[in-house]
Amino acid sequence: MAKVHVTELVLRDGHQSLIATRLRTEDMLPICAQLDAIGFWSLEAWGGATFDACVRYLKEDPWERLKKLRKALPNTRIQMLLRGQNLLGYRHYADDVVSAFVQKSADNGVDVFRIFDAMNDLRNLRVSIEAVKKSGKHAEGTISYTTSPVHDIPHFVSLAKELEAMGCDTLAIKDMAGLLTPYTTGELVSALSAAIKLPIHLHSHATSGLAAMCLLKGVEAGASIIDTSNSSFGEGASHASTESIVAALAGTEYDTGLSLSALQEITAYFREVRKKYWQFESDFTGVDTRVLVNQVPGGMISNLSNQLKEQGALDRMDEVLAEIPRVREDLGFPPLVTPTSQIVGTQAVLNVMTGARYKSVTNEVKNYLLGQYGKAPGTINTDVKSLAVGNAETINCRPADLIDHEMDKLRAESEKLAKTEEDVLTYAMFPDLAKTFLLERNAGSLKPEALLPKEKTTASSAPRYAPNE
Amino acid sequence: MAKVHVTELVLRDGHQSLIATRLRTEDMLPICAQLDAIGFWSLEAWGGATFDACVRYLKEDPWERLKKLRKALPNTRIQMLLRGQNLLGYRHYADDVVSAFVQKSADNGVDVFRIFDAMNDLRNLRVSIEAVKKSGKHAEGTISYTTSPVHDIPHFVSLAKELEAMGCDTLAIKDMAGLLTPYTTGELVSALSAAIKLPIHLHSHATSGLAAMCLLKGVEAGASIIDTSNSSFGEGASHASTESIVAALAGTEYDTGLSLSALQEITAYFREVRKKYWQFESDFTGVDTRVLVNQVPGGMISNLSNQLKEQGALDRMDEVLAEIPRVREDLGFPPLVTPTSQIVGTQAVLNVMTGARYKSVTNEVKNYLLGQYGKAPGTINTDVKSLAVGNAETINCRPADLIDHEMDKLRAESEKLAKTEEDVLTYAMFPDLAKTFLLERNAGSLKPEALLPKEKTTASSAPRYAPNE
Ligand SMILES: [Co+2]
Ligand SMILES: [Co+2]
Repeated sequence: MAKVHVTELVLRDGHQSLIATRLRTEDMLPICAQLDAIGFWSLEAWGGATFDACVRYLKEDPWERLKKLRKALPNTRIQMLLRGQNLLGYRHYADDVVSAFVQKSADNGVDVFRIFDAMNDLRNLRVSIEAVKKSGKHAEGTISYTTSPVHDIPHFVSLAKELEAMGCDTLAIKDMAGLLTPYTTGELVSALSAAIKLPIHLHSHATSGLAAMCLLKGVEAGASIIDTSNSSFGEGASHASTESIVAALAGTEYDTGLSLSALQEITAYFREVRKKYWQFESDFTGVDTRVLVNQVPGGMISNLSNQLKEQGALDRMDEVLAEIPRVREDLGFPPLVTPTSQIVGTQAVLNVMTGARYKSVTNEVKNYLLGQYGKAPGTINTDVKSLAVGNAETINCRPADLIDHEMDKLRAESEKLAKTEEDVLTYAMFPDLAKTFLLERNAGSLKPEALLPKEKTTASSAPRYAPNE
Repeated sequence: MAKVHVTELVLRDGHQSLIATRLRTEDMLPICAQLDAIGFWSLEAWGGATFDACVRYLKEDPWERLKKLRKALPNTRIQMLLRGQNLLGYRHYADDVVSAFVQKSADNGVDVFRIFDAMNDLRNLRVSIEAVKKSGKHAEGTISYTTSPVHDIPHFVSLAKELEAMGCDTLAIKDMAGLLTPYTTGELVSALSAAIKLPIHLHSHATSGLAAMCLLKGVEAGASIIDTSNSSFGEGASHASTESIVAALAGTEYDTGLSLSALQEITAYFREVRKKYWQFESDFTGVDTRVLVNQVPGGMISNLSNQLKEQGALDRMDEVLAEIPRVREDLGFPPLVTPTSQIVGTQAVLNVMTGARYKSVTNEVKNYLLGQYGKAPGTINTDVKSLAVGNAETINCRPADLIDHEMDKLRAESEKLAKTEEDVLTYAMFPDLAKTFLLERNAGSLKPEALLPKEKTTASSAPRYAPNE
């Protein structure tokens, strides 16, 4: 009997983290029978950035992808990642859109909804959790993990208790930046296990090379579901490798019950597939522990570096890296994940480049300070706030409380293009993108972005030793 | 106070495992001051395949490298890897060569000698251990870890006790193939800690993605020195990343006491340096768990695959992979490491390609069966033995007992080329190679193999998301 359950991430977070979410449905389907036979607790295969990437780059209908995966994976739960009231878009939606989106996701094949909010403002999760429960599916409440003076274990425990009270079926710890260390994971999981009855599901990115150790200590402390990615799309910005964790736990009281040799076929398949996408590979795919030193996630550093390069100011990078924790503190220590990572990063760049802090303030920071993203985890710096927004009125309610039902309006706006309720929801996520997408789809003229011809391999005629000591 | 000590491998096993041992001295020296200031227990920086690579490819005098490193690392122990009676060459040497080699290594800067034998025949370690003790340096006795019906914990414990009795200062567990799993590591280290007084030093390759977890469980079980490589040359066929392990243990009772931020400068330096050597990179640098399924180390698989490709028989790979464990069993379960990996692999290919097992037998297998490499860990298949060598006489003594002192002969042979005793020892390791090398060195005409101009980066104009969930 399996004591520890595994969620396989290769169809979503694996390729999202390593090849910019570009894996195509045609490259997923041929291996689905094998994936389906392994016995994973779930296969994360939808949501996150995949919806955007389908519409924007791959010119695939994301709902069609879901239907095909559902058909190809009859025996395995399909899991998606949902950004709470933001769904898979970049703003807060009205509650009727949230309910409709969840219902259609359930109808088309999603079994497990992992729901999170960048601020850990649980009010932003309530409606989607309710919608999942109403659809009869599995609601996984999620804590976005970060470190700060306000993010201590009691803080996370109180979030977990609330999520349990809200009716969640499992609790996820989502360490998107690779900040968890193994012994902290153990303490956190122990505290959560003692405080709630929900099974604990652990998600920790391998960016800083700590993920496998975190899973191990998490499992020892009572986590019963762990997230891993097949090694072909594992490690680095992705996750601990499925095969490694299966091997690590085999024969112990934490045995996953999964077959290491059956997994090899999947590995061999995806290793070949990944080569097709070489143009989306990062220059560096190894371990990067800088986030543990300066608290700035790796993805944010590369975005900032591009931003500074465009302004010919790459030499200001160290100042920006030093400014980021100060801006984050001013904003009450939000976890750094979409959209807060962009909000904090862009303001930090401005603070450095203008030579005076908050001399210029972005609209996003203003909105943030007015409560339009939800409640900050810590205390907002009142000097910064009055500097930025003066006496403008602050929202104290749930941001979506101020948004009227909008499905009818969205239906009307997309009437000429949308053939289904799913199309309306695609339109709701990315109105401009979706217009072009639906138009081309209806005309049968969709063209995915080109994949560049295979790069020549780096194999040289130089003799190589195999490591032989 | 540091509770766990760290050996940094970047100057030897890191680049040996990932860029075919090609790192040049000129790329080591500029960062030595920083490496020296960290506070590592030791820096592995010499021995293994580096001596061969210096002479064969880099056209560097390996003894000059050692002297330069010694000067550049005044505060840190320099560690080398020594193949027991094989030293850094590929045959058994006479005892006087072993003693001279160890003494010269000590004289020129080696502090810690890690000494192993591919067969774990400890008779092949005795003379080098004695020589290290005589030179006043640190002797680390080594167990080559492998799995087989005869390689159980009591077997390893008895080896460790013998090594302790032989006067070793520390005991290394050397898992060259990445076969250790975390809980097995814990059990093994616990058993060893209970049986011997020597500090336990853990070396596990990250090939199968288990190394960091093994170090963690090893440390919990009492290992006090662990091997890691800076992340710039870490993971994959190399080792768990130094920074990750330092971060994992920071603030716990196992704290290494090393500064994570000081390490970042070293990482940044070697990341840039590594790019120079792109032509020696493997196509794949990720996790590979196949060794855990078929017991054939990754390096062996790629060598076999080349061998079969040359014979136009790549389609026989599966048969060869199935034959390898059978040949290994026939030979009494040697660990698969140089030279036994080649001995077993080549015979397995022959057994498959000729269509009849042992119809053709390599000279190496014949010599092996006659005891010329030492004593096999398990029982040799007597049918195979009589088929291969008939009634030929078996050596039961230590192989080097049959080799007369040879320093005088080596001195005479190399007289015209060798300017120092070190030169004679270089000649002893690789007579043909060294002749050319010393000739060119004396003429001032050494030319290192060319480094190809930098490959264009894979960066494309395609937009990339930073992983943002
Ligand atoms: Co993730
Ligand atoms: Co090694």
